Amino acid sequence: MPSTDLTFADRSSHRAWLATQAILPAGFRVGTCRFEFTPREAPKPSRMTLTLLALERPTADFAAVFTRNAFPGAPILVGRARLAEPALGAIIINNKISNVCAPGGVADAERVAGAAAALLGLPPTAVLPCSTGVIGWGLPVDAMLQALPEAVAALRPGSALPMAEGIVTTDLYPKVRRATVGQGSIIGIAKGAGMVEPNLATMLVYLLTDLAVPREALRAMLQRVVADSFNTISVDSDTSTSDTVALLSSGAVPAPDLTAFEAALRQVCRDLAEDVVRNGEGVRHVIRVRLSGAPSAELARGLGKAIVNAPLFKCAVAGNDPNVGRLVQAIGKHLGARGETIDASRVRASMGGIEIFSGGVFRLDPTKEAALIAHLRGAELYASAAPQDGVFSAPIDYPPHERCVDIEVDLGAGSHAATVLGGDLTHEYVSENADYRS
Amino acid sequence: MPSTDLTFADRSSHRAWLATQAILPAGFRVGTCRFEFTPREAPKPSRMTLTLLALERPTADFAAVFTRNAFPGAPILVGRARLAEPALGAIIINNKISNVCAPGGVADAERVAGAAAALLGLPPTAVLPCSTGVIGWGLPVDAMLQALPEAVAALRPGSALPMAEGIVTTDLYPKVRRATVGQGSIIGIAKGAGMVEPNLATMLVYLLTDLAVPREALRAMLQRVVADSFNTISVDSDTSTSDTVALLSSGAVPAPDLTAFEAALRQVCRDLAEDVVRNGEGVRHVIRVRLSGAPSAELARGLGKAIVNAPLFKCAVAGNDPNVGRLVQAIGKHLGARGETIDASRVRASMGGIEIFSGGVFRLDPTKEAALIAHLRGAELYASAAPQDGVFSAPIDYPPHERCVDIEVDLGAGSHAATVLGGDLTHEYVSENADYRS
Repeated sequence: MPSTDLTFADRSSHRAWLATQAILPAGFRVGTCRFEFTPREAPKPSRMTLTLLALERPTADFAAVFTRNAFPGAPILVGRARLAEPALGAIIINNKISNVCAPGGVADAERVAGAAAALLGLPPTAVLPCSTGVIGWGLPVDAMLQALPEAVAALRPGSALPMAEGIVTTDLYPKVRRATVGQGSIIGIAKGAGMVEPNLATMLVYLLTDLAVPREALRAMLQRVVADSFNTISVDSDTSTSDTVALLSSGAVPAPDLTAFEAALRQVCRDLAEDVVRNGEGVRHVIRVRLSGAPSAELARGLGKAIVNAPLFKCAVAGNDPNVGRLVQAIGKHLGARGETIDASRVRASMGGIEIFSGGVFRLDPTKEAALIAHLRGAELYASAAPQDGVFSAPIDYPPHERCVDIEVDLGAGSHAATVLGGDLTHEYVSENADYRS
Repeated sequence: MPSTDLTFADRSSHRAWLATQAILPAGFRVGTCRFEFTPREAPKPSRMTLTLLALERPTADFAAVFTRNAFPGAPILVGRARLAEPALGAIIINNKISNVCAPGGVADAERVAGAAAALLGLPPTAVLPCSTGVIGWGLPVDAMLQALPEAVAALRPGSALPMAEGIVTTDLYPKVRRATVGQGSIIGIAKGAGMVEPNLATMLVYLLTDLAVPREALRAMLQRVVADSFNTISVDSDTSTSDTVALLSSGAVPAPDLTAFEAALRQVCRDLAEDVVRNGEGVRHVIRVRLSGAPSAELARGLGKAIVNAPLFKCAVAGNDPNVGRLVQAIGKHLGARGETIDASRVRASMGGIEIFSGGVFRLDPTKEAALIAHLRGAELYASAAPQDGVFSAPIDYPPHERCVDIEVDLGAGSHAATVLGGDLTHEYVSENADYRS
């Protein structure tokens, strides 16, 4: 799935690589500000970052897809309505509080968007508000309005890095991917580390291009590309109430060949989706499942998800333990729950290229066990360190490499295939989430 | 759900209480033996327990339900065939290796059953073999056959405790529940701690009665009772390849009123199902979700399962963190993924009797936050202790109480309801499963 197999020897090389990706396309500017606030519901001071993305001229050419969670955040409700507007001129994003089912949430989102619009000389409906963070709490609107002018004053073209850094919550590092198409480019910026099993959308993802692609083409392409990228990943099987993918064209560069544009967009989205998993909360191994030979695309993807979401298999991977019985359990659970009849004797499965199951039975021996352990160790992102004051934390702030635990399953029952990415289940995930808000 | 709200002040009181439950009904005997063996696939010595349950006279009156996992273990395949046999005289159970998709697995299971039958003077098809443990490895049949006579020699009436203790793997304590009906009794014996989200069956559960209930009545009742008990729990959303619930009547006591019998059977199964969750791998809080006001029973149970299986909510509970936004996320994910339209403004949710959501918005304030934390702390089974050599382990060998984290959700959209039990997601779960086989 990744376009490149990158390794990052140290933080400076990761920063240098990020700089090659985070080049804002022509026509966009980014500004951020940071301030202290106290939530109403559980008073304890915290710091929020406001991130403002502005176009030099409002554009009619934009697309967005949103979470299918049935209890979406207020910004999702506002964002869906924005799709009918003639033009978009800016996006205002806050972290820390996601403004989901909070009393007065939609009015709060509109107040923030309206204030940003007034400062930028735009109609209020030309600003898309986005929020990520704790579910259930209300936005500190007064503090946000007070801080907004600083973000406007900070608006600069050139680098998207302030935006990639501004929108994070529990992310370990900023995520930006770039592709060039003809004279223009597409960049993608993502936040997302937990509550990640997007359903026809994902976390907060912003795709920016200077290439002049019309609105209707952008929207159709975004649906297709998201299905092949963000909808094939799962960090923890939870689906956020705030998932948003927005795609904006500034139109500064003439329209390219649309096939080449879509291919580049797909690559950016796949790379970003992998970044989101690699940066998943507590993820110490990225698991890549290639599921083939399925009777339907839906079953191929469902089985891939069933494997990367099986807690016992995820724990085994965390421990570099090739307990592949749990992998087959996960396949069998999914098939059994759906009443799918698959001939087990035609199923083949391998890990790290090593056959573990065929002809209806496991193919295991001590030599393979050692090779499987070596494969798992080779894909480890970092060694788990002893907890400090009882809390495990990830000792890295950038991904050291792009290797995966590679699993291939051929059902031998059809021609459909899917590739799904997920992560292991670690002490770092539990530490991160057992007291996230404190 | 529990018939009683028990507390166990110390281990001796738990043992004393177990003794009141583990009274074998008339007509049954139990024997066990323990021996050392080395698995072929990953050579490292281990110890296996063989547990033998024998009837004084073979019975035609037996019932069983098995896992719906599509890759079931060899004993499940053998067990399904046993349902057509005229009589059952014994059950032979091993732990450590589950004999799932191992080469020659069915022949291995039949060899062990046949050897037990020969020693007991039964036809081979009158013995049900059961296995639990690592998936994918083969049984050490020679070592098992050598050990079998010791288990036969140990057969005794009176106490079921040797059986409850013999069948465990990662269980913290034996699980036995008993109900009396007229002049007879029903006892249930369960093992199960991980890979527990049974689908129309559960783990290994043995229900024994001396009451003469005919085979067809037993089988119909077992289906109904299992749906209301073991199929409403989930420790970790994984579905074992070995789930088995067997119900045997010795017929030593005249047939009772069948309605009273089924009610007692249901109570035993519900209590045992709760025991399985309370003893779940790493479980430090039992979560009980009462989901009402649903348009269908299937959706009520599905939403209950979605809540107890949501990793982020499970982690929050582990940390005594009332992050109820994650609870509502889980409901919304399940509804959204199924395209169910529920009017959020009619949904009401509470935790520990404290309203947290109504009228489409959260109802949170600092006073409620403190009360929710107190409720979570009150339901904690034990405090998490610092890890030894990097490994977290549960410092208890019996459940201190029967309290739960009580969640009530009323969808306001129908008349169907379900109660679902699950556990939190803790460091102890990860430690248990990151290197289970070592």
